[in-house]
Order: sequence, then structure tokens, then C-alpha cells
Amino acid sequence: MRTVDLIRRKRDGEELSADEISFLIQNYTQGQIPDYQMAAFLMAVFFSDMGDQEVTAMTRAMVASGSTIDLSSISGVKVDKHSTGGVGDKTSLIAAPLAAAAGVMVPMISGRALGHTGGTLDKLEAIPGFRTNLTVDEFREQLRMYNLAFMGQSAEVAPADGKLYAMRDVTGTIESIPLIASSIMSKKVAEGIDALVLDVKVGSGAFMKKQVDARKLAQLMVAIGRRHDKRVQALITDMNQPLGFAIGNALEVMEVSQTLQNAGPTDLTRLSLELAARMIFLGRVTMTLDDAREMAQRKLLDGSGYRKFKEVIKAQGGDANVLDRFDLLPNATGVREILSPRNGYVSAIEAEYVGLASAMIGAGRETKDDTVDPAVGVILEVKVGQKVDAGAVLCRLYYTKEDRLEEAAETVEEAFRVSAAPPEDRDLILEVVG
Amino acid sequence: MRTVDLIRRKRDGEELSADEISFLIQNYTQGQIPDYQMAAFLMAVFFSDMGDQEVTAMTRAMVASGSTIDLSSISGVKVDKHSTGGVGDKTSLIAAPLAAAAGVMVPMISGRALGHTGGTLDKLEAIPGFRTNLTVDEFREQLRMYNLAFMGQSAEVAPADGKLYAMRDVTGTIESIPLIASSIMSKKVAEGIDALVLDVKVGSGAFMKKQVDARKLAQLMVAIGRRHDKRVQALITDMNQPLGFAIGNALEVMEVSQTLQNAGPTDLTRLSLELAARMIFLGRVTMTLDDAREMAQRKLLDGSGYRKFKEVIKAQGGDANVLDRFDLLPNATGVREILSPRNGYVSAIEAEYVGLASAMIGAGRETKDDTVDPAVGVILEVKVGQKVDAGAVLCRLYYTKEDRLEEAAETVEEAFRVSAAPPEDRDLILEVVG
Repeated sequence: MRTVDLIRRKRDGEELSADEISFLIQNYTQGQIPDYQMAAFLMAVFFSDMGDQEVTAMTRAMVASGSTIDLSSISGVKVDKHSTGGVGDKTSLIAAPLAAAAGVMVPMISGRALGHTGGTLDKLEAIPGFRTNLTVDEFREQLRMYNLAFMGQSAEVAPADGKLYAMRDVTGTIESIPLIASSIMSKKVAEGIDALVLDVKVGSGAFMKKQVDARKLAQLMVAIGRRHDKRVQALITDMNQPLGFAIGNALEVMEVSQTLQNAGPTDLTRLSLELAARMIFLGRVTMTLDDAREMAQRKLLDGSGYRKFKEVIKAQGGDANVLDRFDLLPNATGVREILSPRNGYVSAIEAEYVGLASAMIGAGRETKDDTVDPAVGVILEVKVGQKVDAGAVLCRLYYTKEDRLEEAAETVEEAFRVSAAPPEDRDLILEVVG
Repeated sequence: MRTVDLIRRKRDGEELSADEISFLIQNYTQGQIPDYQMAAFLMAVFFSDMGDQEVTAMTRAMVASGSTIDLSSISGVKVDKHSTGGVGDKTSLIAAPLAAAAGVMVPMISGRALGHTGGTLDKLEAIPGFRTNLTVDEFREQLRMYNLAFMGQSAEVAPADGKLYAMRDVTGTIESIPLIASSIMSKKVAEGIDALVLDVKVGSGAFMKKQVDARKLAQLMVAIGRRHDKRVQALITDMNQPLGFAIGNALEVMEVSQTLQNAGPTDLTRLSLELAARMIFLGRVTMTLDDAREMAQRKLLDGSGYRKFKEVIKAQGGDANVLDRFDLLPNATGVREILSPRNGYVSAIEAEYVGLASAMIGAGRETKDDTVDPAVGVILEVKVGQKVDAGAVLCRLYYTKEDRLEEAAETVEEAFRVSAAPPEDRDLILEVVG
């Protein structure tokens, strides 16, 4: 088997066999295939696409490139939740405690912020003392005791994905649906779960700009899951405006606390409940999805989700008091208001710009090695569809350094559109796949 | 300017500016852009194509990457001839002496065999003593004295092309029309010529399998030439069967000798005369193409092309007697006949298979570092359209080692198709561009 022949065949739109794909991934991970051949292969995949079987083979080869986490000693159905990345998306911190409170085993293995999107690990680390670097043994033990544990991805899990992702990042091949699907699913399959709820974001603030692409990605991930005997459901949800009001790590923890106390934003509450319900249903706690929805709702209203989150924060070394006393969280030192230039209706809040602005003042990362400032971010004062007067506050930037404040203010200003006519209503949950 | 952004823009079908293309080529040649980014860019070009202006900018940047040969001290119009590569294609060794005998200045800078196609340098080196490694001064001096000199490409000419070609070879990006065009034209522009006759091969034995692609390549090269103030004409010619009867270096020198004595194969003679005529016309020796055709014919019939070739062989240290005494050329030690399995008409002789078989027994190279056996090759005993009886000899393999003889015999057997009905006539010269 010659690598160049496999590149050419993929380039010419042929389907590669599982053995051929395994040959590529295995030899690349071991350094037998040079970066430049993998780069050409990835670009050929970008253009020629891959079928279900190829993506499944790719996922399998990536899983086989490293170790897997063995959760078989833990009874119960293990259900994870994964989002393809959004702005203000803190649903994991709400849906996971609700599902865990309902009795689902929730092993949450999460990522960090990159580009304009946030990351669950960074949000958790805004809580003083919170440890995300659990060992696998600690992770298993906590899961057994509390039904829920959070940790970061280990370098031993799907190392092929790490190497491939770094290559995609510098060769313009991030935005390939089969490559995104195999990257996500290889990590999830290696983490020993039984079922997975996916939140595939679509819109200006997401990787997927078009619903047809988001649907394709969702279908592909559900298919990969099925071929690996995992039950997978995917929601396709709107990411044209940020989710909730808060963007930025400590700010989002505050909003999580409010939402778990049933005082959060409508959109965030609604999506978190639906995700929790899907987790409860896939976790076989209830027989029907409607029962699962009722249960998620109950776990919110009776405060058991909120208590579960506190319990888990404590278990992972964090100060759970932050959920009641926001002054214990890292706090910004300066505030800048962005005002509406005219009377009208908010017709757009481009999530990407809000995310970028927030990253500029330190809430996110532009490269993997940047550090994150937990205190800073953006609080929206309005959402799409709302009526505003000229001079009304559209949002506030919370900052600690003034380095790139002006640039961030300009960027976030560009995110808002205020129009004479109210915009059309847009659904938050657009589709369900699987 | 970030390389990854340029890759993404080309990937998305955008046209890059001359500065952007120059940035890529210059930084890649200097090692500032890594191979894997160039590999991804090349694959993006394969799919997204390039326009005239982009290919011209690419050619210019590749010329600028090295030194150029200064032929301005030599009076007269300097005309080179280049073929995109075929099987049995020895027209350079016939057309160049004819044009030189007619008074055209012919600086022939040639390449070597690779894959199933032959190379002019290898053919010349089958002549005992023939030196192809002239210095630029020797090359100029010989051109001044004899109107014709042959040499190989210097590593200082368009080094970017060498580096890019090696990368294309291992990343499945050889068959890209803009990349082929800029590769060929950068070398030709750097060689100080005024005009160029191109022979763009099309068919199973050529890089270009379809006439529409060959036409696109020809048009692109003519356009690049025009933007560099070079007069360029391109013939698009059939390469479904080998040209002439002989394939293999010494065997082809013998056929060149016969053809220059007007005793060669019809197809080879016809194409060589047309190429010589175009060189004579572009070299401004005659006012019209028809006059140039007459002159080429006369130089063949009066033996002055033949004498010119002998003169040049002597000037470059070769034994010119080989053209009369073929026993002075390297000779094969064994012969294997391939017989017709049935009565009928020869309906196809796949040039690619004949070239591959010939390379297998040593006439060509599978990788750049292979050495070539000058003695071996294939002599066709029939051409497409000819009637044959079962058991008649279709061709002979001339070999010196039996290593891969069986494999070569099977491969060459596969090249022939003998059918009940005669095939349709096919034109040799299909189109003229420019």
C-alpha cells in the first residue's frame, strides 16, 4: 500500500477500505507517514468527502491509536453530552447536574476555549480551587459516588486526533464534515460511554454556517455512534446569537447558578432542559421522552440539579459557595457599556463577533498556548427581537486590562444590528437527528 | 499574510493576487513555509484551479527563485521545443537538427525519463561519449557554432520548480493543469528563449487523458508565454499508441537515424516535420508556415538535418558513427517475442503499458534515483489499424536482465488489442493552439 496512491484515490472520489484508512491513521500517528502527505490527504477529504463506512473506519483507527477509559465497573448507563462549540454555551454545566440528579451516570470529558467559542473546562476553572485534572481512578470514583464528574481529555485518549487536529488547523482543513465527525466521535467512543447527546450548533457563531451542513454532520455522528453500538441523539440548535446573556468564564458560572435556581434566561433554560431530558431518556431512567422532560423539569424546580452541581464542585476541590456569593468568583475591574445608536428592534447579535470580542479582552484563546482570564467577558442586556431606545445599553464589557479594549468594543458593536422592523422569530431547537 | 489564510482562500475558489502567490513560492523555496502547508495548497489548487493571471504570477515567482540563462549575446531567434511526455517520442532529436539546419538557434534544455515516459537526455546518453552536462559557457559556445546544443536542466534554474515537483510527486498533485503549466513554463522562460513549440500529448500514454484537458493546458501555456513576451505555439497530438516503432534509449537513437535519413516511420516523420516547421516559422527564417514546412522537408530530404545531428553529437563528445553502425550502440542480449493471439486488426496499443513494460526491464525510471539501461526496450512490429494473423509477432522485448521480464511481457501483452473489425482512423495532430 503506497500512501500517494491512497491520496490519489481519495482525490479522485473513490471510497477507501477500512484497512486503507487504518493504514493511513496508524502510520501517521507513528510518524511513518510524513505531515505533507497527511496534509494533502486531508485537503483531498475536504473536497471529495467520505462515506459513513470510511468515517467509521477513521474513527475506529483514531480510537485504536491510544488508550480507552474503562467505565465497565460502574453500573448504570453512561451518558455524555457534547456541543460542537458556541458562544455563551454553558448548557453542559446545567444539563449534566440535572441528568445526574435524575440518576443518569454522567462522565463529562470536556474541552477548552479556542477561537471565538468557549470551553467547559475553562468555565469550571473560574471556580476557585476546582480541579479538572482528575486521574482516571479519581474520575471513576467520583462518578460512582455522585453520578457526575468533569475532566479534561487525556493525551493518551485518541492521540491520532490531537495530531490530526493540529495539522488541520494549519492547512485549512478544519471545516470538513467527515473530519469534524471523526474527531469528535473518536474522543467520545474512547471515553467508555454508552450513549451521547450531541448539540450541533448552526449559524454565524458556529463552525457550521448552514443547516444542511449541520444536519449532515449530525447524521454522520449518529451513524458512527450506531456502528460503535452507542445510542446517539443530536439536536441541531441555533447559534446566530449567543446563548443566554453571559459570555466569559466566571460570568457564565454565575448564569449557570441562576439557571439551576430557575432564574436564568429563557433560551438557556429551555435548551438545557431539553438536553437533560435526552440524557435522562438515553440513560433509560424513563420509558418515554416526555417522562424524561417532566423529570428534568422537576429536578430543576426542586433544586436537586443545583444541589448536585454544588456537591460536584466540592468533590473536585472547588468552593461551592461561589454559586451563592458571586463576589467569591474572579471579578473584572472595569466595565464598558455599548449603547444603541438608534431606536428600533435588535435584529441580530452576531455570536461570532461577541465571542471574538470576549476572547480579545482575555476570556478566550487565539492560540492553544494563550492563558485565559476567568474574570472578563460580555453581558448582553438585550436579546434578538427586543425593542430598544437610542442610547439604551446593548451590552457591557467586563475587563481587567485595557490592552485590546477598544478593538473589542468595536468588534462587539459590530455584532449588534438595530432595525426599524422587528425580526422574524427564529427557533432555538431546529431539528432532532437520531 | 498568513499561509493558512491563503490556503483557505484558494480552497474556497478565490483568486490570489500576484503578491500572495509570490509570497507562497518565495517563502516555500526559502524553507519559511513548511512542506505540509504547501502540500495542502497544492491539493487546493488541484480542486479549485487557477486563472491565467495566477499561473503567470506563479511562473514568474518560480523563475525568480533561481538564476536565468543569458542567451542575449547570441544573435538570431532562439527557439526551443518541449513535449509534455510520451512513449517512443524522439521528435526532439529529429526536429531540432532539422530546424538548426534551417538556421534557427535551438537551445535544447531537456529532461530525463520518469514513470512510463522517456527523456531526451537518456536517449542522447545512449550514444557512447555523449556529454549532456555542458557548462552554460560551453552551451552558449556550441549554440553559436552549430545552432544547436543539448543539455540538462541546471539546479540553479527555477529551483522552486524542483522543490514543488518533488512535493507534487508524493502528494498526488502531479495532474493539475495550472501546476503542470507553471512547472514547464518556468523552466522554459528561465532558459532565455524567444519562442517555444510545445507538443501537448493526449491519450492513454500521456498525462492528459482527455483532449479538453490537453487544450486547456496548451492554452494556459500559450497565455503564460504571451505574458512573458515569448511566442508560443502548441500542437495537441495523439499519444494513444507509441510514436514510431522504437521505445528504449539506444533503440530510439537508431530510429532517429533512420528517420533523419527519410527511412523512418510515417507518424514519427510527419510529426517531427511539423514541429520543425513550427520552429522554423517562429524562428522567423521563413515568412509563412507553408514555406517553413517546405524548408523542413528539404532539410530532411537533402540530409542536412542528418549531418547537423552528427555534427552536434561530435561536438558534445559522442561517437557519431553510431548513426551508421548500430552495433556501436549498447545492445541488448536477449529478445522475447510477443505474438498475436488471433487473426484480426490491431485496434489498440496502449502507450502507457508499453512504456511501463519498457521501464520494468530497465529503459526507464520508477523513482528519480534509478539508473537507466540504454540497451533495452521494445520494438513494435505493428501499428494500430494493421491486419495480423494469429501467431504473428506484435512486438519484441529487448532485454539484458531477466529480473522483471515476465512481468514486462505480461504488461506489454495487455497493451495490444486485436479485434475482428478495423479501428477507426485517428488523427495524429489533433489541434494547434496559439
